Amino acid sequence: MFKTMNIFRLCTLKHMRLLLLMNTLIFLVLLFTLYISFTHSEKNFNSGNKFDEKQLTLNIIENRLQKLQQALKNRFPSAVDYIDVHVKHDLPTIYAITPTYKRWTQKADLTRLGQTLLHVPNFRWIVVEDSNEKTALVTNFLKFSGLQYTHLNAKTDQNYKLKSTDPNWLLPRGVAQRNKGLTWIRKNLSPNINGILYFLDDDNTYSLRVFEEMRSTEVASVWPVGLSGGLKFEGPGKCKDGKVLEWYTAWKPERPFPIDMAGFAVNLKLLFKYSEAEYSNDAPRGYLESHFLTGLKLKRHDMEAKADNCSKVLVWHTRTEKPKMKQEEALIRQGKSSNSEMEV
Amino acid sequence: MFKTMNIFRLCTLKHMRLLLLMNTLIFLVLLFTLYISFTHSEKNFNSGNKFDEKQLTLNIIENRLQKLQQALKNRFPSAVDYIDVHVKHDLPTIYAITPTYKRWTQKADLTRLGQTLLHVPNFRWIVVEDSNEKTALVTNFLKFSGLQYTHLNAKTDQNYKLKSTDPNWLLPRGVAQRNKGLTWIRKNLSPNINGILYFLDDDNTYSLRVFEEMRSTEVASVWPVGLSGGLKFEGPGKCKDGKVLEWYTAWKPERPFPIDMAGFAVNLKLLFKYSEAEYSNDAPRGYLESHFLTGLKLKRHDMEAKADNCSKVLVWHTRTEKPKMKQEEALIRQGKSSNSEMEV
Repeated sequence: MFKTMNIFRLCTLKHMRLLLLMNTLIFLVLLFTLYISFTHSEKNFNSGNKFDEKQLTLNIIENRLQKLQQALKNRFPSAVDYIDVHVKHDLPTIYAITPTYKRWTQKADLTRLGQTLLHVPNFRWIVVEDSNEKTALVTNFLKFSGLQYTHLNAKTDQNYKLKSTDPNWLLPRGVAQRNKGLTWIRKNLSPNINGILYFLDDDNTYSLRVFEEMRSTEVASVWPVGLSGGLKFEGPGKCKDGKVLEWYTAWKPERPFPIDMAGFAVNLKLLFKYSEAEYSNDAPRGYLESHFLTGLKLKRHDMEAKADNCSKVLVWHTRTEKPKMKQEEALIRQGKSSNSEMEV
Repeated sequence: MFKTMNIFRLCTLKHMRLLLLMNTLIFLVLLFTLYISFTHSEKNFNSGNKFDEKQLTLNIIENRLQKLQQALKNRFPSAVDYIDVHVKHDLPTIYAITPTYKRWTQKADLTRLGQTLLHVPNFRWIVVEDSNEKTALVTNFLKFSGLQYTHLNAKTDQNYKLKSTDPNWLLPRGVAQRNKGLTWIRKNLSPNINGILYFLDDDNTYSLRVFEEMRSTEVASVWPVGLSGGLKFEGPGKCKDGKVLEWYTAWKPERPFPIDMAGFAVNLKLLFKYSEAEYSNDAPRGYLESHFLTGLKLKRHDMEAKADNCSKVLVWHTRTEKPKMKQEEALIRQGKSSNSEMEV
């Protein structure tokens, strides 16, 4: 023991960088040991329960470890060979496309969604603004989010733009933005990449567990979405052995895919194979998702059932209420709006 | 180098537990070195900017490290002496009281708020249900949340209960639940504890940064709340050197504290000093916060200004829209509601 300590002291003085690298390796051993001991102790519990605390904790630690490795790599470029061996190369990256637009609650919605995404390892957030220029608000928000991201913009064609008095179902929404994200992926990623495509809305609610479910998507996958289509949940209603037996919806059940945008993920290889598939402003009401998925030549029976054979709701179609801004609107009319330097 | 390696191999075989402890210590050295090098490189930037990525990343790593230490402590009780030296004993714990009630979006709202709180170190969530019994939904949600929590319940007196047709401002809300949380704190914590009290609503939006701001509260602190009181923001409007110079509100400016529930925190020592202070169902409309704060013998000039001298909005008074459940309601009327085993 004393001998080891002396060697450490020597190293501290002489080979600080090498010691740092060694520490990382030792920490990886520690983590692996912890993982093994967790896995072993899990056998005492119901091993079928995929949704337990420990897996969640491990995912989080794994994510933090990756960040630490990245920081080390930036500081000691020559260390790449030592560190990269331990990065989970076999964990596919999730590419999530989120259309967003200016409104009172935009920063709040992006903030709480971003804080959820901070927990998800191997994740890239493709945020596409409905605007002619990238705004300072979204630019700064992303810069300080701590996330891996791509910031794009695409203005919705005025002919397809909802007026503030229109009901929100009148026209399909987010078409130009989702297509811009798809174009970015096809232009910037290799067709051989091991990745998953998902469409995230900025005011929906996502459990961390849904990201781990979609990560194993081989072709395309589905799961139920809570509070969707006027129902408690909508989408795959009965599943067995990873296949969907029945679909559950109360509205236009004849749609090729009676599901919400938050209820499916697609393996990127499909996106490269059918390179024309995209969203359309001319899709009939409720057919936005179906138009895209049939463009990828998918049929209902192709879909892999996730979320414990579609028995769990891990995503909710929530909406943030438009805030009542009576006092602010009165001030704006008088030309005396609240401190314009305060970003909200 | 080779000599060190051999010693490690020996240790791996003979003293696995000791090696684990050593690894933790080495990892702490690594983290400290990283911290020092970050701090030094920061001097090249504007040191006045408290809101930078690195601090956030460090907070997160610190939190994960604490969890790792806890796991080690559980597994090797004899290791406490080695590990505890490195736990941040000087970081006050935040005790946040959240009233919650059954509704369609309850689990979604708790899920996304919980995922934000997972990032906050030294934090205990006191969740108080408005119900006669603790519900299975909230019990299971908390159990798998990964958070440190206390689960309570307190039914609102029917005389003070809003009807579903009432506007939400008609009666004060969450009074019985917040008081139940206050009673728990006064009964279960030591008056000498180093802690901060905060009231979290389950559908508001909280930036991670607000928790680090409130943690240094010496007596009581305030900051602006976005989208509150019909304005872009409400609360302290102009601050200097940690003191509030002007208050900003468009509604009942004569209130002792023209602020929202999400806009203040109190040091726990005050709660023990004025042990009668609590919320009241009889407070006039808009006076809920003021009644509680004056019960703690606070005056406007006592309040410490946070959030960069009240120049940043780090909390938003958001509300989750009540979902349109037309189809589900029709099914319920026909006695054929969606799969009751599916928790949403």
